[in-house]
Amino acid sequence: MKPYAPGEQPPPGKFIKLNTNENPYPPPPEVVSAITAAASGPLNRYPDPMATSFRRAAAEALGLPGPEWVLAGNGSDEILTILVRGFVGEGQSLRLPYPSYILYRTLADIQGASWEQVPFEEGWQLPAAFGQSRDDLRLVLLPNPNSPSGTIVPSQQIKQVADSLDCPLVVDEAYVDFADENCLDLVAENENVLVTRTLSKSYGLAGMRFGFLVAQPQVVAELAKIKDSYNCDTISIAAATAAMHSQDWLAEKVAAMNQTRQRMAGELAKMGFDVVPSHANFVWCTHPTGQHKAIYEYLKASQILIRYMEFPEWGDGLRISVGTDEQIDACLLMIQRFLDQSE
Amino acid sequence: MKPYAPGEQPPPGKFIKLNTNENPYPPPPEVVSAITAAASGPLNRYPDPMATSFRRAAAEALGLPGPEWVLAGNGSDEILTILVRGFVGEGQSLRLPYPSYILYRTLADIQGASWEQVPFEEGWQLPAAFGQSRDDLRLVLLPNPNSPSGTIVPSQQIKQVADSLDCPLVVDEAYVDFADENCLDLVAENENVLVTRTLSKSYGLAGMRFGFLVAQPQVVAELAKIKDSYNCDTISIAAATAAMHSQDWLAEKVAAMNQTRQRMAGELAKMGFDVVPSHANFVWCTHPTGQHKAIYEYLKASQILIRYMEFPEWGDGLRISVGTDEQIDACLLMIQRFLDQSE
Repeated sequence: MKPYAPGEQPPPGKFIKLNTNENPYPPPPEVVSAITAAASGPLNRYPDPMATSFRRAAAEALGLPGPEWVLAGNGSDEILTILVRGFVGEGQSLRLPYPSYILYRTLADIQGASWEQVPFEEGWQLPAAFGQSRDDLRLVLLPNPNSPSGTIVPSQQIKQVADSLDCPLVVDEAYVDFADENCLDLVAENENVLVTRTLSKSYGLAGMRFGFLVAQPQVVAELAKIKDSYNCDTISIAAATAAMHSQDWLAEKVAAMNQTRQRMAGELAKMGFDVVPSHANFVWCTHPTGQHKAIYEYLKASQILIRYMEFPEWGDGLRISVGTDEQIDACLLMIQRFLDQSE
Repeated sequence: MKPYAPGEQPPPGKFIKLNTNENPYPPPPEVVSAITAAASGPLNRYPDPMATSFRRAAAEALGLPGPEWVLAGNGSDEILTILVRGFVGEGQSLRLPYPSYILYRTLADIQGASWEQVPFEEGWQLPAAFGQSRDDLRLVLLPNPNSPSGTIVPSQQIKQVADSLDCPLVVDEAYVDFADENCLDLVAENENVLVTRTLSKSYGLAGMRFGFLVAQPQVVAELAKIKDSYNCDTISIAAATAAMHSQDWLAEKVAAMNQTRQRMAGELAKMGFDVVPSHANFVWCTHPTGQHKAIYEYLKASQILIRYMEFPEWGDGLRISVGTDEQIDACLLMIQRFLDQSE
């Protein structure tokens, strides 16, 4: 079995990291205060198994009917693991679009299950085949916005996909805070719509590991039986609760990053890149020269990490995370230098 | 499927908690400092996927050949989950002694696997049947010291069990810091011996969720493929590393708790309890009156929580965690009062 390979993690401070879609800004100050306060609390006692304070804060921030619509996890990776374990047995199957988040395949492999990739159509459109039922199909996963493309499938279309499927549809909204719409409303309409979120990207808490599921209460209750009893720790629950109370901070940082993203996309286009319009904190781009790997390596030699991605039978390209304006300027400068040299 | 039910978690501060084997003392001060320092670090960046600093500190503290003998997890619960997922497929089987830690059964149920309980013999001795191979048997789990009994199987006997099995033997050493021996030496001798540890009990870090596996490097490498990429967070890695550097603190607290345990066991015996000699931070006791549930409820009404446990076809009894001397005095006083009243 080939394990999932996350993006490179160099020693801190030495690189400009634009390769794993982290937030370039530190988390809300209230989060740091909450961690410090919790550190002096009763760490010798087990945490709240259901992370009640977080669930309340999340339900309030997202306008959900109540905390029982939320399941907290040790990163949305854990939530995805719980979903695959809960719905997909050995020899059964899950579906994902292609190219997208290949972790889903790894989760199927670990489970002894199979996976089916449905290629996006031209312009990152979802084909009708994505919503077709099949006997052994037990879970369909859709990152929305998608990675590496940053594209989004409209919630109206996702509703149709969910309605046509016989199994649950997971809408992985890791990047949705950078987009203009989301699928939370669909959850109440169809118990087979399950939305996952993470605090790693928009809230600047990749180091904290906190993600959650939004689903109808009876689904949350069943999946809670699969998770480890104490899957979230006292400190991360306090941090995540404070993060959900920091909606003004979130709006401000998302606006700043989306502005940087637009500027970056424009500059890349001027350099001849084909840039896919992004609804996430990264952009996917390809260059007519096809020298994607060379650009990645040239930047890495200058201690700027971006992501070179190659999708068999599809093609390759560069995924560049939205950093600070200074980081993006440095990145653009080096790309321009590479292009100048290679002419 | 019946989920695993952990001990009751009342609102903090209102109860004397002697029901979930937590450490009554706060964690080492260095751990609190490490958390506070990490809170101001780059939380917007992903953590070290392999928790290198912790693995180094653990290898040094335990005298292991190197960090590659250690796999870090989000609590030893996650390590146990990884082991069951890694070794036991649907329709295959795992084995545990009885009575012991029933979480193992839940993990088998979640996996669609079956479990076989081998009853302890008189005096909590392990029967020969525990080491017998069987075709579909893929994992054997032995808590040592055992819960609820607090008894320990000598490592020499565990060596024989491991040698006679065809599948891996997990020695769950959650409580071993309170005992006089452990099975770490067996890991180097037999790649099928896997030792799990937790920082929840002896290090006073139940709220932090950190556990680890000690196994031969090739086993660690294979199991690392199953875990979530970033299963431990930046803060908990810093806390756990500091904990492993606090061996003097550990020795002092373990000595104090073992002294309290001896005193508690003596006092319970004076009240007529049959007290099993314990090598853990709790004692298992039964009373000739058989009024275990009534004692539990009487204490709960006085805001003292102990654990009433009933094992079908075996019997029931009380498991009392080692608290501070003051907590134990309060607990003993109320038990005495119950016995006085019920005469």
